[in-house]
Amino acid sequence: MTLMTSWVESANSADTDFPLNNLPYGVFDAGNGTMPRCGVAIGDQILDLCKAEGDGLIDLGGAPVFDVPYWNDLMDLGPEAWDSLRSQLLALLGADATPRPEYLVPQADVAMRMPIQVAEYTDFYASKNHAFNVGVLFRGAENALPPNWLSIPIGYNGRASSVVVSGTDVRRPWGQLKAPDEALPRFAPCQRFDLELELGAIVGQPSDGMVSVAEADRMIFGYVLLNDWSARDIQAWEYQPLGPFQAKATATSISPWIVTRAALEPFRTATPERERPLLPYLQEPGPMLYDIDLTIGLTPEGGEETVISRTNYATMYYSAAQQLCHHTISGCPMRVGDLLGSGTISGPTPDSLGALLEMTRGGQEPVSLTGGGSRSFLEDGDTLTLYGAARGDGYRVGFGACSGKVLPALDATQIPGA
Amino acid sequence: MTLMTSWVESANSADTDFPLNNLPYGVFDAGNGTMPRCGVAIGDQILDLCKAEGDGLIDLGGAPVFDVPYWNDLMDLGPEAWDSLRSQLLALLGADATPRPEYLVPQADVAMRMPIQVAEYTDFYASKNHAFNVGVLFRGAENALPPNWLSIPIGYNGRASSVVVSGTDVRRPWGQLKAPDEALPRFAPCQRFDLELELGAIVGQPSDGMVSVAEADRMIFGYVLLNDWSARDIQAWEYQPLGPFQAKATATSISPWIVTRAALEPFRTATPERERPLLPYLQEPGPMLYDIDLTIGLTPEGGEETVISRTNYATMYYSAAQQLCHHTISGCPMRVGDLLGSGTISGPTPDSLGALLEMTRGGQEPVSLTGGGSRSFLEDGDTLTLYGAARGDGYRVGFGACSGKVLPALDATQIPGA
Repeated sequence: MTLMTSWVESANSADTDFPLNNLPYGVFDAGNGTMPRCGVAIGDQILDLCKAEGDGLIDLGGAPVFDVPYWNDLMDLGPEAWDSLRSQLLALLGADATPRPEYLVPQADVAMRMPIQVAEYTDFYASKNHAFNVGVLFRGAENALPPNWLSIPIGYNGRASSVVVSGTDVRRPWGQLKAPDEALPRFAPCQRFDLELELGAIVGQPSDGMVSVAEADRMIFGYVLLNDWSARDIQAWEYQPLGPFQAKATATSISPWIVTRAALEPFRTATPERERPLLPYLQEPGPMLYDIDLTIGLTPEGGEETVISRTNYATMYYSAAQQLCHHTISGCPMRVGDLLGSGTISGPTPDSLGALLEMTRGGQEPVSLTGGGSRSFLEDGDTLTLYGAARGDGYRVGFGACSGKVLPALDATQIPGA
Repeated sequence: MTLMTSWVESANSADTDFPLNNLPYGVFDAGNGTMPRCGVAIGDQILDLCKAEGDGLIDLGGAPVFDVPYWNDLMDLGPEAWDSLRSQLLALLGADATPRPEYLVPQADVAMRMPIQVAEYTDFYASKNHAFNVGVLFRGAENALPPNWLSIPIGYNGRASSVVVSGTDVRRPWGQLKAPDEALPRFAPCQRFDLELELGAIVGQPSDGMVSVAEADRMIFGYVLLNDWSARDIQAWEYQPLGPFQAKATATSISPWIVTRAALEPFRTATPERERPLLPYLQEPGPMLYDIDLTIGLTPEGGEETVISRTNYATMYYSAAQQLCHHTISGCPMRVGDLLGSGTISGPTPDSLGALLEMTRGGQEPVSLTGGGSRSFLEDGDTLTLYGAARGDGYRVGFGACSGKVLPALDATQIPGA
C-alpha cells in the first residue's frame, strides 16, 4: 500500500506518524474549559469528533458516542460500527473531500488524556528472548525458560487503576527490598527502577465463555504503546509464589493514540515457527502479529535523548489474539476496555532489548548515554519515551510517543511507617 | 453487647443472622419488572432503601444514592455518610420506632444481585496454616513457606469480571493440564476443581499514594463471604513464574450481604503474635481482625449437606487493613469498589481447613460425606455453601449464605480447538 492523501497537508508526508492511512483515536483536552473530547489524529492536526458528530458529519446510526471523553462507547457498538467510522473518516479527510479546517485542532495546542476507560489490565510475557534473559537473571540459566512457556501464553493480572497516559510523571516507588546477602527486608525507595517496552492490545468487544483465536483477533479494537514501569528490587523479593504485585503497580504508561486494527492490516505477519507444537485451541488461522518498528529513548534531566534500543513487535512468540483466546479458556469474561500488555518486547540482539534489566544484565553492564554518563537503572529526572511505527511504501503508520518522567521518591516524612 | 430489638419481630432472635445489631447491605430483585434495589436485611425481611429514600425516610443530605442498583454511590460519600445511614437505620428499625411494614419485602420473595460494582479484585494469601499446607503440596515441606511470607502480606491481582453473587452456578472450566509424568499438556476439563473459603473486604474510599494501616482500616466499608473457586490442576501447571491466572478466573462467589465494619466493631481481635518483626509500616495500632466463625457445607446433587470445615477469621496472620496498606506502598491507586480476598482461611487442625486441596492432602485422603460417598475434589452437581457469623451475647451478626453449584464442563463440541 502507498500513501493515501488528505486535504490536511501535513498528513501527506513520509515523515508523519499520522497520514490518512492511519487515523488513530485519542482524547484531547483543548484547555478552554470544555470537557476533553474524542479526536482523530491527521498530520499535525486532530479532527474534533464531538463537533463532527454533533453537526452530523459523522453518523453511526444511533445515539451519539462522542459526547463522552473516552472511546468505550464506540467500542461497545462493535466491529461494523468501527468499520463504518473508518469509512466515514476516510471520506471526510481524503484529498477529494471538501476541506473543513473548522473541525481541526492543532496537536500542539492540546493536552492528551486517557483514550479509554480501562476495565481491567493484564500483562503477558510473550517474548521468548525476554523470558529467557530475565529467567537467567532471576533463576539462573538452567531454569531460565519455565517448562510451561512454550505451551502457555503466560500472563498475570495487573492493576487497571495504575494505567496512565503518556506525559504523566511517574514517581519512584517505595517498597520492601532485600538483597540476597541481607537477612531481613528494608522499607526504602526502589533502587532498580526500570521500564518495559510493550504493545498494548485494547479489547473492544466482550466475551462470555471461551473464544477462538480468530474470534479473539476480531475482538481487538486497536493497539497502543505501553511502558510497564517495573521496580526490579521489589519484584525479586515479592514475586514468589504468586507473581509480581507492588513491583508493577506504580504506573503503566500508554500512548495517547490507539492505532486501529484496520490501520495495521497491511502489516500483518506470522508468529515465528513453533519450537513445540501448540495445543489446537492456540493455533492461528493466519498471521496475527504486526511488523512494527519500536524504539526506546532515554533523556536525562536537561540532557539529550539516547536511543537505547531498537526492536520489532514481530519478534514475539505469541500474538495478542492468542493471549486473548487463552485469557478466556477458563470462562473468564472479557469486557470492553480490557487492556492486554504484550509483555516486554526484546529482539535477539543486545541492541534490541526491551528493558534495562536485560540491557545491563541485571545492572552489571551499564548502558552509555550519548551526552555522557551511563545507566544501570533509571535515575530521577530521566524521561523514557517509546516510539513505534509500521512502515509502508512512502508512509508510516505511527503511534506518536509514549513518554514519562521519573520523579524522585517521596521523602520519608511523607511515608507512613518509614 | 447484647441483642438490640426491632419492631421487625423476626429480627429479635438468637437464631437470625440479621438482628438490628447487624444491618447488612445488599441489592435485591423483587422480580416484578422494577430495577434491582439497595436494601438492608432485618430478620427475614429487607428494608427497601430506594423507596425509603424516595419518601424521605432516609436522607443523606444530598443527591439520592439509592436510585442505582449497587452500593458504590453510598460508599463514594465516605465514612461520615456511612455512620449517618447506620444511625438513621437504627432509629427507623428500632423497637421504639413506628412500624412501617410497607417498606419491607420478605427475603423469601426476592433474588439477590451483586451488591457492588467491583472495581478491581485482589486475592491475598494471609493464613499461615494455608500457606504452609499448600506450600508442602506444591513445593515440598522444605520450601513450604516462602521466605518473604512472614514479611509481606502476599497478594496477586485477580479478575473483577469473574466475581459473581451467591446463587450463581459455576461451570467447571477447561484448561491446560499436565500431570508430572506427562511430557506435554492436554486441553481438557479441570479434574481438580476446588473451593477456597475466604472473607472479602470491600474498599469504600479511594487512595492516591500510600496509606497507613490505620487509614486503610477506615477505608474499608464492610466484609463479605468469598469463595475463590480454584482449578488446582490448571494452577499447578500455569502458576510459575508469574502466579495463578486462568486457574482462578472461572468465578469468585461472594455473599449478597455486606456486613459493615460498624456492625463488626464489637468483635475486633488482634492478629497473632509475630514470628518475625514486621516492618513499621505494617504494624497495627490496634486489633484489626474479627472473631468470625466460618463453616463450609458441601451438598451433593439431591443429597444432604455435610459440614466439611469449621474455622475462624481470627486465625489469619495479616488483617485486611494490613493488606490494603501494603497494596498502596508503591503508589498504586485504590478505588471505591475494590474487593480484597483475605486468602483461604485455614485453622491449625485438620477439621478447620479452607480448601479441599488441604483437607484431602492433594486429593490423597478423600473427605467422607454424611450421606455416603466422599470427595477428593468437587464433582458436578455439588453445591458449596459458606456460612459466617460473629457471635455476641444472645445474638449473632451473620453474613447469610454464600453458595454456588458446580455445573458440568461444556462438551468438547462447544469448545473452540477442543
